[in-house]
Amino acid sequence: MDDKVRIIEIKRNVFEDNNLEAEKLRASLKRDGVFLLNLMSSPGSGKTSTLIQLIDRIKDKFKVSVMEADIDSDVDAVKIREATGIETIQLHTGGMCHLDAGMTEQGLRNLDLKDTDIVILENVGNLVCPAEFDTGSCANAMILSVPEGDDKPLKYPLMFSVCDLVIINKIDVLPYFDFDIGRCRRHISLRNPGARVIPICARTGEGVDELAGWLTDEVNNWKNK
Amino acid sequence: MDDKVRIIEIKRNVFEDNNLEAEKLRASLKRDGVFLLNLMSSPGSGKTSTLIQLIDRIKDKFKVSVMEADIDSDVDAVKIREATGIETIQLHTGGMCHLDAGMTEQGLRNLDLKDTDIVILENVGNLVCPAEFDTGSCANAMILSVPEGDDKPLKYPLMFSVCDLVIINKIDVLPYFDFDIGRCRRHISLRNPGARVIPICARTGEGVDELAGWLTDEVNNWKNK
Repeated sequence: MDDKVRIIEIKRNVFEDNNLEAEKLRASLKRDGVFLLNLMSSPGSGKTSTLIQLIDRIKDKFKVSVMEADIDSDVDAVKIREATGIETIQLHTGGMCHLDAGMTEQGLRNLDLKDTDIVILENVGNLVCPAEFDTGSCANAMILSVPEGDDKPLKYPLMFSVCDLVIINKIDVLPYFDFDIGRCRRHISLRNPGARVIPICARTGEGVDELAGWLTDEVNNWKNK
Repeated sequence: MDDKVRIIEIKRNVFEDNNLEAEKLRASLKRDGVFLLNLMSSPGSGKTSTLIQLIDRIKDKFKVSVMEADIDSDVDAVKIREATGIETIQLHTGGMCHLDAGMTEQGLRNLDLKDTDIVILENVGNLVCPAEFDTGSCANAMILSVPEGDDKPLKYPLMFSVCDLVIINKIDVLPYFDFDIGRCRRHISLRNPGARVIPICARTGEGVDELAGWLTDEVNNWKNK
């Protein structure tokens, strides 16, 4: 493994039909036995810290790689690599506010997928655009952090609709914010009654075992489908 | 004043050259003596609470109106109107992740601009796309809240480059997060050495007098230009 995190400059998708490209990518991942998780959130909700905690709990069972998408900088990729030691690449989106299936596929080509079980894509921090583009992932998850407020499912409905899992992060600061987990669950349920909701604290690790259990079940169910 | 907040469905801009439209809008605002402030941030950083505190401090000196842009819902417009009593309209962007000058102008047409001194546009909660489109505003401000982290200027460089003012909100929770105001100032300065930085707490009102002073100076300087 090199010392430096590789930075991949990805280009805007040339394909007109993103949904078709996404289906093709999903089929190819299925053939290769690689489960792709697309993780989305606002900037600063704790995607990177959550991933570090999660990877720590699954890396003995699964071979995991991470693709960090960012407009600029490689801050997150370096953090993940240093904390977990797993293969991590940084995707630069050239100012684009989301990833689509073609861009995701460009990233995957830069990973060594042999024997890989799980690739986690940390999407650009944004509650709007990433929800509009199917990346070809096998599951979508998002993080809503307590300081953002429990009204976000009302304001960013599409994001909450497309996610199989909503992680509520930073529950250690619940006493300092007007955030009600029950009310948040009701708001999420309005948008997506089938979504799983898991409250966690990426700083202390609280709830991350449940998250690791969710991902393990998802991967195993998908492999046996 | 009606009891209900008006909701305006705005359409995607038909103009190819947004920069030209933005310059035209700025010139027309100058003729009308209306100062337009474009306020941007991530979801949940406290734009609405900050506006309520700010408006409370300037509404005796200036006639202020607010345009709340959102993909869906009128949660914010109702909050501002109930708390301040000023004219507030809700702009629905039809899924669009930002406002451009044409969309802003559509919103302005729905306000009574007679004798109005200041219109504040609360842009869609997003650190990426709104930075790419000049709305025609006379000044740009953004809010970075403490829980989001002090590394955001490194990760969303354009947003920090286009803003005249960076408000650091939620300073009351500094003890619970790894956020260093000095480090944050240095990161902002890398992107935009001329940006003014004002730390506040919209919940308690700390720092909002300084913010009101900044806006008052901006409006007066602009009127005398």
